[in-house]
Amino acid sequence: MEISNSLVRFSEHSTVTLVQQIGGDDTVLASMLVSTQAEASLAMLEEDAEGSEGRIRYLMKNRHGTPFEHNLFTFFIQAPIFVFREFHRHRIGWSYNEESGRYKQLEPHFWIPPMERPLAQEGKPGAYVMVPVDKQTYMTTIAILTDSYRYSYKRYENLLELGIAREVARACLPVAIFSSMYATCNARSLMAFLSLRTESERALFKSTPMKEIAEVADKIEQLFAEAFPITYKAFCDYGRVCP
Amino acid sequence: MEISNSLVRFSEHSTVTLVQQIGGDDTVLASMLVSTQAEASLAMLEEDAEGSEGRIRYLMKNRHGTPFEHNLFTFFIQAPIFVFREFHRHRIGWSYNEESGRYKQLEPHFWIPPMERPLAQEGKPGAYVMVPVDKQTYMTTIAILTDSYRYSYKRYENLLELGIAREVARACLPVAIFSSMYATCNARSLMAFLSLRTESERALFKSTPMKEIAEVADKIEQLFAEAFPITYKAFCDYGRVCP
Amino acid sequence: MEISNSLVRFSEHSTVTLVQQIGGDDTVLASMLVSTQAEASLAMLEEDAEGSEGRIRYLMKNRHGTPFEHNLFTFFIQAPIFVFREFHRHRIGWSYNEESGRYKQLEPHFWIPPMERPLAQEGKPGAYVMVPVDKQTYMTTIAILTDSYRYSYKRYENLLELGIAREVARACLPVAIFSSMYATCNARSLMAFLSLRTESERALFKSTPMKEIAEVADKIEQLFAEAFPITYKAFCDYGRVCP
Amino acid sequence: MEISNSLVRFSEHSTVTLVQQIGGDDTVLASMLVSTQAEASLAMLEEDAEGSEGRIRYLMKNRHGTPFEHNLFTFFIQAPIFVFREFHRHRIGWSYNEESGRYKQLEPHFWIPPMERPLAQEGKPGAYVMVPVDKQTYMTTIAILTDSYRYSYKRYENLLELGIAREVARACLPVAIFSSMYATCNARSLMAFLSLRTESERALFKSTPMKEIAEVADKIEQLFAEAFPITYKAFCDYGRVCP
Repeated sequence: MEISNSLVRFSEHSTVTLVQQIGGDDTVLASMLVSTQAEASLAMLEEDAEGSEGRIRYLMKNRHGTPFEHNLFTFFIQAPIFVFREFHRHRIGWSYNEESGRYKQLEPHFWIPPMERPLAQEGKPGAYVMVPVDKQTYMTTIAILTDSYRYSYKRYENLLELGIAREVARACLPVAIFSSMYATCNARSLMAFLSLRTESERALFKSTPMKEIAEVADKIEQLFAEAFPITYKAFCDYGRVCP
Repeated sequence: MEISNSLVRFSEHSTVTLVQQIGGDDTVLASMLVSTQAEASLAMLEEDAEGSEGRIRYLMKNRHGTPFEHNLFTFFIQAPIFVFREFHRHRIGWSYNEESGRYKQLEPHFWIPPMERPLAQEGKPGAYVMVPVDKQTYMTTIAILTDSYRYSYKRYENLLELGIAREVARACLPVAIFSSMYATCNARSLMAFLSLRTESERALFKSTPMKEIAEVADKIEQLFAEAFPITYKAFCDYGRVCP
Repeated sequence: MEISNSLVRFSEHSTVTLVQQIGGDDTVLASMLVSTQAEASLAMLEEDAEGSEGRIRYLMKNRHGTPFEHNLFTFFIQAPIFVFREFHRHRIGWSYNEESGRYKQLEPHFWIPPMERPLAQEGKPGAYVMVPVDKQTYMTTIAILTDSYRYSYKRYENLLELGIAREVARACLPVAIFSSMYATCNARSLMAFLSLRTESERALFKSTPMKEIAEVADKIEQLFAEAFPITYKAFCDYGRVCP
Repeated sequence: MEISNSLVRFSEHSTVTLVQQIGGDDTVLASMLVSTQAEASLAMLEEDAEGSEGRIRYLMKNRHGTPFEHNLFTFFIQAPIFVFREFHRHRIGWSYNEESGRYKQLEPHFWIPPMERPLAQEGKPGAYVMVPVDKQTYMTTIAILTDSYRYSYKRYENLLELGIAREVARACLPVAIFSSMYATCNARSLMAFLSLRTESERALFKSTPMKEIAEVADKIEQLFAEAFPITYKAFCDYGRVCP
């Protein structure tokens, strides 16, 4: 059986693109103030939110979460399937639409670890430490992974050439293959995601996320910080706990 | 004990104000097409969605719901508590912040039925028909309701004057008192709401919502129809079933 | 117009009855251990969970929440509407079915504050303190509330006698009227509820819930403590933060 | 580099084991009847639900969904990752805990299609038909898949032997590898799952699920039918639409 040649790509990083965004510190304030000001709270949407930093900090400190829900972020994310597998466990306040291995042929695009990624694991479940490997071991790792990816993808192509349905043929594709999706959330579900999927000195509750989802989370955090400067600062100052 | 005089207001109708909105037929298309086009789907956001009406109708007909989630509506709604009580049972894809009877004194603003509201109920649970009453009965109804509202509100004021906390004093206020809230949803959760809270000849599954929540739903429907013309038409054409 | 006499009841307390319950510390363990033991985790369901207290404490401390979801509590709760209004804002992991003011005539059963309930409010929004009142003020409060409830209920009966539909007539009923509902949750959504609706010295994040929902929460807490002794202890020891 | 020999297993089928279950047609009835009977609805839990078949059918027909939520199913499911990827898109009313590729070495256990599985795909996206292939093509498919799986797994072992962390080494493993999870739902979220993941002549809205998730769904359906005989019959009779 002939094995066709495909242009295989390897990427060390995921990408996050902001598709659309609405709401900000001002909608946090307006929706918070409806409790005491009713209709007059609408005026907050016309004002500068900066003068009300204390109120947002109060919400964050006391974990009043709902005012952070009246807003939206839609991201277009490209990442390997093993990252999306973790991502999709965030059920509440997240909407997803993903590239389909049933309806399209998947591209030969695979994740490989960057040089700086600590590759060796030491310790027991629940108390792992990831440590770096020497350059030789890194190169061997890359060689093994890319070889395996190439092999799997050729087998995928063999099956497609044989007339086998994509949804069956893809069974041999590795979890490192890139996929893409639209992911929509609000600032509250976004903060819940950050609290679990980033690693930070400032976190009151420490998390040890996998580096590859932490990379996606860091990019999302950047976009969040820009859209909600006051909320973001309060989130960090109060231990990165989702309100 | 003195009973103070307050400026009591009566309203026959609820109000719905659109605070913010993002996303539309184009984001439905883009997120739908990620399944077969991956990154290329982003181009749909630049194009006119009209040429893709068939695709949106396909989603609606086959109940593929997730592409309708990448968008947002925030409404400011003023309605009596008995309407909000039904509204808040919509848990999924809805965010709420409401005026508080603990943190502010509630205004003496109450709902009364409009003349055209059928007031008498005939039939058994699950098979009610609401029928009109004569003008005299309508006038008596209004007289009884407004008298009761006034009485309750005066008692509320008595308690506040006595130094009793708002959260206790409000216990005597009627469910017809107006409240206000921010409510945020997406097109999918909005359609689920409409399918249960409107009454329509075109509905595949008939609903018999209370008139007062149907009034709010009708106003929301209007705003939805403007923001998602293709999706809205498909929703109506396929029996007003939430995808 | 005649005002009929109804047997009006006043209650100082809400009730919580456990209808059904399944799952416990053992299902927390089994579902936690699937991550490292796959099928072998099923054996945990046969074992005594006590020997694994450390594992459950680890989950709680590190806020791994999902293992606390594979279980169920169904409560039958009787409480005034103003309590249910707060209760129903818990959207995630909670299911509700409540008595209907549209489909049945509501009973003349109303809440009144017990003697020990601090009735006066001092301070500003976000920093209230509730303080006791003297006996005379308490008696006056009860007199005003019960008078108002009686008046409203008579007006409700007047409207029903006139042939007005229950859903319209109930508009004048106060938020202190008792209602009843089935509420179903899991240990995780239950802990989220407790973290916000109880007041405790041991809470890492202080809450100032209304006394009347705190009373319901305390009763739920009791039932939770019995069903999940290890989980409950860990919840308290780690600051009553929902994992 | 040595390539070690592992005992590789291939399975044609997924498994579903019922771990625990509570609630049934009687809790549907009790929670439904609270609307008209309040506390008296509790008596339904002592009675035979059969006499109330009409009421459950009424709920199903009119899509009153909440009474179907006061119950629980926990399943232990073993299936390939590409099935779990679809499964986890069911966010509402579902709880998951899955075997971890970060915390344990994954077993060399892979899915292969059974002989009767139509393997060839004809038609366009949204209108596929799966058709059978001849025996020779089937045998070639199995040969290619198992060869690819074996190759990937050996590469995985090579990386582990090199000291590379499991979470990195697993990147080359295929989506056909078996995983296991606890999945908890209620009858309503279960019916939503069935309506989308089974293929049935009786469905009002046709679905074309992937065969491998439909197999899991069929097994879940069986367990549901046993636990909720009246509800299940109504679900089928009214077009298998989730209420």
